[in-house]
Amino acid sequence: MFLAHRVCMTSQGQPWVSSVVHKVRLQIAQDPSLNYEYMPVTGMQSFIQASLKLLFGKHNPVIAENRVGGVHTVGDNGAFQLGAQFLKIWHQDSQIVYIISSKKEPHGLVFQDIGFKVSEHSFWDSKKLCMDSNALLNVVEEAPHGCIFVIGNIGDCKLTQSQWARLMASMKRKQIFPFFDIPYQGFSTGDLEEDTRFLRYFVSRGFEFFCSQSLSKTFGIYDEGVGVLVVVALNNQLLLRVLSQLMTLTQALWRNPPTMGARIITSILCNPALHEEWKHSLKGLVGDIMLVKEKVKEKLRLLGTPGSWDHITNQNGPHSYLGLNSKQVEYLVKEKHIYIHKNGRINFTCINACNIDYITQSINEAVLSTKGSP
Amino acid sequence: MFLAHRVCMTSQGQPWVSSVVHKVRLQIAQDPSLNYEYMPVTGMQSFIQASLKLLFGKHNPVIAENRVGGVHTVGDNGAFQLGAQFLKIWHQDSQIVYIISSKKEPHGLVFQDIGFKVSEHSFWDSKKLCMDSNALLNVVEEAPHGCIFVIGNIGDCKLTQSQWARLMASMKRKQIFPFFDIPYQGFSTGDLEEDTRFLRYFVSRGFEFFCSQSLSKTFGIYDEGVGVLVVVALNNQLLLRVLSQLMTLTQALWRNPPTMGARIITSILCNPALHEEWKHSLKGLVGDIMLVKEKVKEKLRLLGTPGSWDHITNQNGPHSYLGLNSKQVEYLVKEKHIYIHKNGRINFTCINACNIDYITQSINEAVLSTKGSP
Repeated sequence: MFLAHRVCMTSQGQPWVSSVVHKVRLQIAQDPSLNYEYMPVTGMQSFIQASLKLLFGKHNPVIAENRVGGVHTVGDNGAFQLGAQFLKIWHQDSQIVYIISSKKEPHGLVFQDIGFKVSEHSFWDSKKLCMDSNALLNVVEEAPHGCIFVIGNIGDCKLTQSQWARLMASMKRKQIFPFFDIPYQGFSTGDLEEDTRFLRYFVSRGFEFFCSQSLSKTFGIYDEGVGVLVVVALNNQLLLRVLSQLMTLTQALWRNPPTMGARIITSILCNPALHEEWKHSLKGLVGDIMLVKEKVKEKLRLLGTPGSWDHITNQNGPHSYLGLNSKQVEYLVKEKHIYIHKNGRINFTCINACNIDYITQSINEAVLSTKGSP
Repeated sequence: MFLAHRVCMTSQGQPWVSSVVHKVRLQIAQDPSLNYEYMPVTGMQSFIQASLKLLFGKHNPVIAENRVGGVHTVGDNGAFQLGAQFLKIWHQDSQIVYIISSKKEPHGLVFQDIGFKVSEHSFWDSKKLCMDSNALLNVVEEAPHGCIFVIGNIGDCKLTQSQWARLMASMKRKQIFPFFDIPYQGFSTGDLEEDTRFLRYFVSRGFEFFCSQSLSKTFGIYDEGVGVLVVVALNNQLLLRVLSQLMTLTQALWRNPPTMGARIITSILCNPALHEEWKHSLKGLVGDIMLVKEKVKEKLRLLGTPGSWDHITNQNGPHSYLGLNSKQVEYLVKEKHIYIHKNGRINFTCINACNIDYITQSINEAVLSTKGSP
């Protein structure tokens, strides 16, 4: 039993695909008017515009002021690769990158390979079994002036308004450059706007930043790797300068990004009926995730498993910590053949009606068997 | 009038798409059994295998001996980026790259950005108006020991058997590492096997090499950027070592390559009927290219344009040199609004029944107007 799939699974154990995607795929294949010529280096413009509106909201001033733009990239890894290459050349202040997230991020290696000094920090407090909203604030205090902060899954942190204000004030003072990671907008709360509210805080405080926006997961087109490197600048002139440099780098990386995924997403985002259907499918998925978590918690309660399991339902999104220690994880893997990450983070959509009893009983055994050990 | 399109155009002035692609696109969209999960880092295995068979021929010993492999990349630029990164780390002999082709290649910049010393050489002899098969041999003689040779469009050179033998002997002696570029197998002669015959020479002489194989153009799916970085090693063990290193690099670049294009191509190559239909469409396109060239030559002859225009039909493929000097090109651009590269290389598929008379008359005028000037 493998509970560490990267993608969301359906209750039938298949990768989740938004219902609207099949329909659009067929429409595209049947459309004789489509042109399959090379895209410009920066990618499909209609896709970028639709993605930016999704990220910031249609009426965000940053869009009206023409100071946000993007480069269509090959997935989020492509966005980080491109952003890191740009920062290596142009971010002269400091070549230190802090990667702060609720989990181990693959792009740490991207920055390291390019020659940055990388320091990784987690929000997850494995003792208190919760996201530690002070962790980010403390890291900012310690970080050197002018460094780069790659911030992933910050939505999990549930910072209060005053914490946000403190965070932004510290970052401003230290001239820290933020590089956000939005791997799946909407998966945290089911509400697209809510999930990226913090980006609008940063915009309104006059920050310039990068953001890796991945759209593959929220539509269920994993194998197309659809991403955008989003650039927010202080004005249009600065934005154009950055985009022009990014274009040169893109040319060397892949020249023209692949478009099938972008075409599907644009068709959905630009059609109000399809857009609604997609949002509905997204809400359905997030509802299912919460339901599974509730069920796991309830079953553990009924089994009398020691400890509180509220942290399961307190975390948002498909991937969450079970809150097991390394011995308990080892027990699950070795004795129960339930394969999960060492840190106990699992994909809750891998749990379904067929395996939930086995999994919860196994967790119960794991906890009981290691009782008393640290 | 723009005669420098990168892609082949139909007689209606639309990007050429193999007739079989539409059909397969629809089949894929209608297939409920397909899985859109992430691909492995090296890409779609069935696609890589089908591409390698296409490149070397099914029965080539290199396939039977399990010493050829590939990484599915984002187009040919992706293949060069990946290959260049690998060579930067592992090719310790020399950090000098010779780029030899019939035209200016974009990947010169890729190698340069990564830190190689790049030296570019062209086969095209603009005085004799022909591909200079000795150019390559001379460049090898001058090149330093252990350098890298990126060789594009070598098929245009029409080397004799003995020239091939001399070339390979020199390269062996100097331990030059070849990195071939196959941008559109089949477009030169219309014969897929013929176009890559030279690769089999290098295999049989025991060379290890890289090859960037692009498949977007020959199917007409330009916007998907489908490529393979092909690795030929001396044995399976060495091959696996190289692939493992390439995997690490791919992970940082884009992690998972996009699959739509690869899916289309694999569906065609693995189905004998579709494969035949595709080959037929390719032959039709190459036939059309030759026809256009013949017509241009004939029209110039009828107009009494000074000079021999045999070089037009002596060159293979859609992109060929008109054999005009810079003044003549300038005349076409400024006086006739016919936009072509400074070097006079055009895409002959941009010429059709509607514009051929205007184009040939303009060439005639350009030649007459600059008569006598160097």
